[in-house]
Amino acid sequence: MGELKGYLAARREMVDKALEAMLPGDESGGQVLAAMRYSIFAGGKRLRPILCLAGAEAVGGRAEDAMYCACALEMIHSYSLIHDDLPAMDDDDFRRGVPTNHKVFGEGMALLAGDGLLTQAMVLLTDPAWTQGVEPWRALMAAQMIMRAAGWEGMVGGQAADLLAEGRQPDLTQVQFIHAKKTGALIAASVASGGLLAGGGEEQVHALTRYGRRIGLAFQIADDILNLTGDPALMGKAAGSDEARGKMTYPAAVGPAQARQAGERLVAEAADLAEGLGPAAWPLKDLALYIMQRTH
Amino acid sequence: MGELKGYLAARREMVDKALEAMLPGDESGGQVLAAMRYSIFAGGKRLRPILCLAGAEAVGGRAEDAMYCACALEMIHSYSLIHDDLPAMDDDDFRRGVPTNHKVFGEGMALLAGDGLLTQAMVLLTDPAWTQGVEPWRALMAAQMIMRAAGWEGMVGGQAADLLAEGRQPDLTQVQFIHAKKTGALIAASVASGGLLAGGGEEQVHALTRYGRRIGLAFQIADDILNLTGDPALMGKAAGSDEARGKMTYPAAVGPAQARQAGERLVAEAADLAEGLGPAAWPLKDLALYIMQRTH
Repeated sequence: MGELKGYLAARREMVDKALEAMLPGDESGGQVLAAMRYSIFAGGKRLRPILCLAGAEAVGGRAEDAMYCACALEMIHSYSLIHDDLPAMDDDDFRRGVPTNHKVFGEGMALLAGDGLLTQAMVLLTDPAWTQGVEPWRALMAAQMIMRAAGWEGMVGGQAADLLAEGRQPDLTQVQFIHAKKTGALIAASVASGGLLAGGGEEQVHALTRYGRRIGLAFQIADDILNLTGDPALMGKAAGSDEARGKMTYPAAVGPAQARQAGERLVAEAADLAEGLGPAAWPLKDLALYIMQRTH
Repeated sequence: MGELKGYLAARREMVDKALEAMLPGDESGGQVLAAMRYSIFAGGKRLRPILCLAGAEAVGGRAEDAMYCACALEMIHSYSLIHDDLPAMDDDDFRRGVPTNHKVFGEGMALLAGDGLLTQAMVLLTDPAWTQGVEPWRALMAAQMIMRAAGWEGMVGGQAADLLAEGRQPDLTQVQFIHAKKTGALIAASVASGGLLAGGGEEQVHALTRYGRRIGLAFQIADDILNLTGDPALMGKAAGSDEARGKMTYPAAVGPAQARQAGERLVAEAADLAEGLGPAAWPLKDLALYIMQRTH
């Protein structure tokens, strides 16, 4: 796994640098830009951007060509966390060990910071300066893919289902529905959009989507298991908090052992799909195999 | 003005029909889609979509080609109202005479409905089914124009400045800054994107942008005056509510008489710009001249 860790660290550094260039501090932006930057630079793992870059590389393209899209994905992820943490939703005071956006800037400004990040993601996805090297139809299709994954058919729909399900009896079908939409859709779009922007063919992009759906679900299962049993310092919040809140999680629906088994099966399928894409997809393969190891 | 009223009514009907097609009810969409549809079909005047269609016609193009963009603009407008009405922002219980989104669906769901509408706007702006007849670079540039107008450089930035200014001493520079960003930017992008999508040249699109900035500001001045003096039944909320809340409005900064004068000057300039675009821009010209008449 040494090679994978080096890859992730190098790509994360590239993403951090690019985010600084694509969302620079600007006095005319006032407090809302400051609030947007606060959450973007609050220590994310940059999973979605890295998947996007790895998707580009997996089809033989250059990571740089997908960088604007990678940054847009991180902005969408960050907006969803800001809104999710608001009192009207999960009402969380801390994330990744630091105060949540509304705890620092107030509820109204946090709401606007989330709106600003989502909108800025769309600005990036359609910016002629960034999409210059990309065929316009590919840029449009990548934006479309990501926005469908983020909207009511995807992430927003998953958040809504999650909100309504709180406190209800955990149920496997419902958990899978929520997870596939809430996190799986955007993760699948991350890896597929990278492949699309870097010149990938239809079959390659389809394989990346299928890969992404599987690891998206596996990541969520792993997170659910970690939330149940893990180290609060590592998670940045208290262990068992999902349970206390009556959240519909995978282990709550089928038990931790069966949840782990489902996760292992998904990552094995994902690794096979990455393998099928050829040697340039090695980071995707290794990453898939790493997901469930975190829970051991 | 009879001709203008007929034009507005006909375009409004076209927009309502198109919105029904572009945001159809769908059982799989659950409560969040229902909440999105609630606000979209809560009786808006469809000003931004109509401006977009009129912009397309003003450059000699067909309104139909800009319809997907027109609908996206209404979704962005509707999302901004939902979020603006939330307790963390203006805390309004009624809009256009009906209960606000969070009063019907709850705060969390209203937050998500807003997020869903903003995202769905971007889905429309990049949808191959709708952008089919349009050159891809024009579709990308229209999306870019709209999203910049909606984000921290535009509407979101204006909302943030408005939030911070509440209760402070009204100041003309600050009022103009807030209005230009909060409502002016998206109105300008509405009319310009229509012209761009319908094949308009650079100078035509530029003239439409300048026209839009002027009527955007004039609309806000007229609304501020109406809020101060108008009929609550017409506005759907109490007269004087801005004043009671210490909102930074145009009449509060310079007095009603000077505010009206500024509005009249802006609409005269806008009418001249429309005139310069030729006879197909007659609805834009008549609309500009109508704005301040509402306040008499």
